[in-house]
Amino acid sequence: MSRILAVGSIAYDTVETPFGSSGETLAGSATYFSLAAAHFVPVAVVAAVGEDFRASDLELLSGRGVDVGSVERMPGRTFRWSARYSDDLSDRTTLSTELGVFAGFRPSIPERHRRAPFVFLGNIDPGLQREVCEAVEKPKLVACDTMNFWIEGRRDALMQTLGLIDLLVINDSEARLLTGETGLVAASRKIRAMGPRSLVVKRGEFGSVLFTESFTGALPALILDDVVDPTGAGDSFAGGMLGCLAALDATDDRALLRAVAAGSVMASFTVQGFGMKGLLRATPERIQERHRALASMVGAPAEPLPLAAPPRAG
Amino acid sequence: MSRILAVGSIAYDTVETPFGSSGETLAGSATYFSLAAAHFVPVAVVAAVGEDFRASDLELLSGRGVDVGSVERMPGRTFRWSARYSDDLSDRTTLSTELGVFAGFRPSIPERHRRAPFVFLGNIDPGLQREVCEAVEKPKLVACDTMNFWIEGRRDALMQTLGLIDLLVINDSEARLLTGETGLVAASRKIRAMGPRSLVVKRGEFGSVLFTESFTGALPALILDDVVDPTGAGDSFAGGMLGCLAALDATDDRALLRAVAAGSVMASFTVQGFGMKGLLRATPERIQERHRALASMVGAPAEPLPLAAPPRAG
Repeated sequence: MSRILAVGSIAYDTVETPFGSSGETLAGSATYFSLAAAHFVPVAVVAAVGEDFRASDLELLSGRGVDVGSVERMPGRTFRWSARYSDDLSDRTTLSTELGVFAGFRPSIPERHRRAPFVFLGNIDPGLQREVCEAVEKPKLVACDTMNFWIEGRRDALMQTLGLIDLLVINDSEARLLTGETGLVAASRKIRAMGPRSLVVKRGEFGSVLFTESFTGALPALILDDVVDPTGAGDSFAGGMLGCLAALDATDDRALLRAVAAGSVMASFTVQGFGMKGLLRATPERIQERHRALASMVGAPAEPLPLAAPPRAG
Repeated sequence: MSRILAVGSIAYDTVETPFGSSGETLAGSATYFSLAAAHFVPVAVVAAVGEDFRASDLELLSGRGVDVGSVERMPGRTFRWSARYSDDLSDRTTLSTELGVFAGFRPSIPERHRRAPFVFLGNIDPGLQREVCEAVEKPKLVACDTMNFWIEGRRDALMQTLGLIDLLVINDSEARLLTGETGLVAASRKIRAMGPRSLVVKRGEFGSVLFTESFTGALPALILDDVVDPTGAGDSFAGGMLGCLAALDATDDRALLRAVAAGSVMASFTVQGFGMKGLLRATPERIQERHRALASMVGAPAEPLPLAAPPRAG
């Protein structure tokens, strides 16, 4: 049985950055998440793709330990998104969104995935996220991502979902928008009062901060000189994080901090290439090497990450 | 003999932030630096004050272990600066600058301070910084701060100074302005090619990054929910950093990373009050407590900071 159930989007993105263009490329929150998490434990994905979705793209996922048996092929086209990033990559403009089959997506969780101990709710409508929460059976941890679009447009539904989850993983601007607080401590207090026991605030190149009831953690990001496309960094971060927690089978403060390090490492690969290119360069050796570099940066001991045996090549 | 020689400004600031106003208050780079560093080792300050400078302010410094015997009292008024910060404290507007005696300040290094093993060149004209470098005798480490004003207006003089120093401590926007590089790795490479063996890039609430020939380190800042005035944070950071290095009597990578932690801790006190108020609340116990909190945040062992015996109260 898969240790993680991930629900989210599988998409074809076209992204332009000052460093080039991705062309139309495999992307989506569930894709980034599961490819990152599968380095740690088996992952099952629930998502929808269109009739145009390439078989080779599904094989890429399954070849790397992702259970795609519940990826539904629906009549219509696969979700497409295109965007252009600003010169310093800190801002982006959506050029087009074609929902395709994603418009009618209602995640249906098969019986065999309802007992997955770790659940990731990718950035989709909070009402659908809630349905997933209600379908699963006593998971150890449910983690959730969201975005400005839902915070502003679906606040009530999002609040209901937040009441059902254990860990929220969002970026700093989302935390501010959700709470109206500019200070991180005040924002984290408000968010934890909304439901999640724990919160990770991602700060891009500046790293991330972890808030739990009893602990505040923070790690810098790896210092990279060849970032070309930040798309998918947040989902890869969440994938590394939940993968690590699932492999440790723990959700205590110490495990959460190790998981934040794992998330940072996985995100660092993603931003070095367009689409999945960067993340696909991650190997167990390279993951452990970057994890040692991150630990060394902060002067911490580098206990190896709990990686699975190397996944088969796609 | 003092272990650190610091050259910089002693000033009266008037600062407004969304959280209040400082009134006219003791400030200046040498003041913040020396009060922070004196928690670690004896510090001597070379600076100039006017006839209006309050005796009680000099006593405040000397009462906390700062050798003010070389602070020159000159005819005229003490340097005054006033500024207003933006709502999120990320930006500030200078409202007035009255150089006073600072306009004619030429640091003269007395014989007894020329052999100080650690030297800090606060943010003054790079030509004067160079004169200090030329006056001192084989220090173990010379650290230097600068700002946009000198990078833009006195680049040639600054380049000469950079060729003489060991450690540059600047913020991220200054690093970009100095090098024309947006990426931190590229900027650090260029800066180290200008002279300094080591570089610390301060990123405000996001912490700081250390670059040496053989090592890259990074630490987050302490997460604070009561920042009221960022003035002096950078000088307090440098004070904690050089204080720690001088107390360890070391300049290797490991000592530098410990020193960055010490700098972060000292800066965290400064930003919690106007003028010297926050920094004056630092006690050895509180410093060690924050240092343990910082180490815990990143999962590193908390080796106590090498603090001096408690300074006498002022």
